[in-house]
Amino acid sequence: MNPLDAVFNAKSVAVVGASQNPEKTGHIILRNIIDGGFGGEIYPINPKGEEILGARCYSTLSEVDGEIDVVVIVVPAKFVPGVMEEAGKKRVKGAVVISGGFSEIGNEELQEEVVRIAAEHGVRVIGPNCQGFNYTPNHLCASWPLVRKQGPIAVISQSGTVGATLEMWAEDDEIGISSFVALGNKCDVSETDLIEFFAEDPNTKVISLYIEGVKDGRVFMDTVTRARRKKPIVVLKPGKTHKGMRAVQSHTHSIAGKDEIFDAVCKQTGIVRANDITELYDYSKALGFLKKPAGNRLLIVTSSGGCGIIATDTAEEGGIDIVGLSDGLKKSLTEALPSQCVVQNPLDLTGDTPAERYKESVEIALAEGKIDAFLLIFGDPIPGACEVVKDLKSRTKKPIVVSYLGGGEIEREEGKRLHQNGTPVFQTPERAVRALCVLLSSL
Amino acid sequence: MNPLDAVFNAKSVAVVGASQNPEKTGHIILRNIIDGGFGGEIYPINPKGEEILGARCYSTLSEVDGEIDVVVIVVPAKFVPGVMEEAGKKRVKGAVVISGGFSEIGNEELQEEVVRIAAEHGVRVIGPNCQGFNYTPNHLCASWPLVRKQGPIAVISQSGTVGATLEMWAEDDEIGISSFVALGNKCDVSETDLIEFFAEDPNTKVISLYIEGVKDGRVFMDTVTRARRKKPIVVLKPGKTHKGMRAVQSHTHSIAGKDEIFDAVCKQTGIVRANDITELYDYSKALGFLKKPAGNRLLIVTSSGGCGIIATDTAEEGGIDIVGLSDGLKKSLTEALPSQCVVQNPLDLTGDTPAERYKESVEIALAEGKIDAFLLIFGDPIPGACEVVKDLKSRTKKPIVVSYLGGGEIEREEGKRLHQNGTPVFQTPERAVRALCVLLSSL
Repeated sequence: MNPLDAVFNAKSVAVVGASQNPEKTGHIILRNIIDGGFGGEIYPINPKGEEILGARCYSTLSEVDGEIDVVVIVVPAKFVPGVMEEAGKKRVKGAVVISGGFSEIGNEELQEEVVRIAAEHGVRVIGPNCQGFNYTPNHLCASWPLVRKQGPIAVISQSGTVGATLEMWAEDDEIGISSFVALGNKCDVSETDLIEFFAEDPNTKVISLYIEGVKDGRVFMDTVTRARRKKPIVVLKPGKTHKGMRAVQSHTHSIAGKDEIFDAVCKQTGIVRANDITELYDYSKALGFLKKPAGNRLLIVTSSGGCGIIATDTAEEGGIDIVGLSDGLKKSLTEALPSQCVVQNPLDLTGDTPAERYKESVEIALAEGKIDAFLLIFGDPIPGACEVVKDLKSRTKKPIVVSYLGGGEIEREEGKRLHQNGTPVFQTPERAVRALCVLLSSL
Repeated sequence: MNPLDAVFNAKSVAVVGASQNPEKTGHIILRNIIDGGFGGEIYPINPKGEEILGARCYSTLSEVDGEIDVVVIVVPAKFVPGVMEEAGKKRVKGAVVISGGFSEIGNEELQEEVVRIAAEHGVRVIGPNCQGFNYTPNHLCASWPLVRKQGPIAVISQSGTVGATLEMWAEDDEIGISSFVALGNKCDVSETDLIEFFAEDPNTKVISLYIEGVKDGRVFMDTVTRARRKKPIVVLKPGKTHKGMRAVQSHTHSIAGKDEIFDAVCKQTGIVRANDITELYDYSKALGFLKKPAGNRLLIVTSSGGCGIIATDTAEEGGIDIVGLSDGLKKSLTEALPSQCVVQNPLDLTGDTPAERYKESVEIALAEGKIDAFLLIFGDPIPGACEVVKDLKSRTKKPIVVSYLGGGEIEREEGKRLHQNGTPVFQTPERAVRALCVLLSSL
């Protein structure tokens, strides 16, 4: 059993520095744990001993009778060693140090003291100077914002904002996440510990990583090589430019290292490298939902001629084959479809198409068997898109990716339903195709 | 006066083929004209002569007593010449032919007949085979979807879906558009006619173009050269790859032409070329709101260290200088800001910053005078962002761009208010910086 299992699947949590003031982090985290629906014991710790959010408050950790699996620490830095000592004595499994004021501002010694105490007692430490963690399968949001929706993506991030952004996009889209873990100063638990955990975690399908540097290159390489046999990993790592590297230095004191070397590591280990936050999300979504297609032959079915062309350009540039239709397939489609449809690849069903026509077209192409993946572009408010894709998915294992745009309220509704049903939807054809390219090039 | 002025600023509109059936285009367009708040006369035309949406219906155009400026035609292709004849006799200024069934499916002759009749009577024709037009200053949405919000962007699009997508994003963001015109088969009114009109239109600040080909290269070049003296133009033109070009052929029968030549035309005339729909929107937004900065020295002020690094990388790659802070500026900032702030460029105000601290920082930098533009990154729910930017804008004409992410409901609210206030907001720091790069390289 991975030692972090006891942390993520904790049965009891204490928040040291819980506060009655709704603007304080010690209040927000406690509230998110409660509102997130955590089913275990919750112990707010505050020297004043008052009741917070309806929960009985304890003045110290030692005062708690029951076992405590995880301690979330939100008190000022100088008090953290003392709290860690107490936590150790209570035999907690993990401590999440939210508080800043350690190595990031030059207080290396204080951080080392915390690490030493934790190690003596076998306590694993996340942070310090971090945004906590959220593990939706255990309804444990010891972090902010409160994101409840469970989904395939585990986000590991050295930036609270980048992680929170991914969480919120995934929640808005009704995709959800399995987890978000903020790395902070990585005094103990590092990206590799987490990659190892999520590689085995049955609730996670893809690991989505924002890092500014790696602790130990060799360990990183070994870990991801093993993890990649289980799950896809997507990474965003800035610090490519000289000034970007310098900014990394002052943010997390990481060594960004030569970007060419990191890039080579990604290629060798099969990590997908995202170029920006949007790609990190898009690629995680595609890899979290779909398997690699058997080949690179894509059929585009669209209600918008323009979007079909845009998708074609993007695909051709990315090594996807917008394969010509065989005479047989052309004949079957021409017979089945109304005369205004343009029977080519992209297959243009034209603006007034009902969703049903997509189904018919894909079924005919499936029968011929020469297409490896499908991109369906709904370029208007076309109700029933989700039902059609659901039907098709019951007939084929080949990847189906959707782009839905220009569809207003119906687009939003269908998009969410498609995500709930495990089909990735993208706001533009370019984003859909780029995600498909990544799917294709994944190991 | 541009002859299209009488069309966009029409005082009366007829919809030929108006329908009682809410699913028909002839119903949707009539409803959008009514619901859009058009202040002029509205004449639904339908041979059955029934009342539609509370408006009296006429059986033919000739039956209408008053003048008609614009006729929207939604009847089957074969009836269009007859309607055009009638429209000509009524001395309408413009006809918008929504109906398909012309050159796009090989019916060149029918289309030529329509053009001939229109020309005889001096009627300008938009379309056929198009999604109509929307001109918000005149509250005239002879198109779909219904988009009412008035804003700086004029969208000219050979794809209904691409145009509608831009309209809807602009409405969602509370930016709005001045116009959307669908080009369709361009039998008469072409992109150059429209560019000419919008270059002079006082309600338009930027022209946003999706085209698959140009009618006449020389005319295009001359027109945009003139228009560019007045306004920025952003263009998305697919058909870069061989298969993309072929898809253009079957969509609008345009000749995509060699992409290198079009690219050279853009560079020579100062048209900004977007690589995808997202860029088309982002660049239009930036150019619609902001003037070119005096130089390329950018100060990044951020609550998220990670996002600051990402922005730095993107800026450096795009030719923006993340200029080092002078000793004087460093000193002033250090004195003014709390100790946890990282006084560098990017200036990291750290996670718990109030909006007020952004104002203070930018004011100090303004006093020194060595920064040309500002990127403010709000990487958390930070209320008051809009007020701060508003204050700053009253003190400086230097461009201020905002990226807001990880902020949930507060982000959405502040984003809309910032847009209403004329500040472009981007969902990620990369998108913000790329838009800044375009602003900088604009003529």
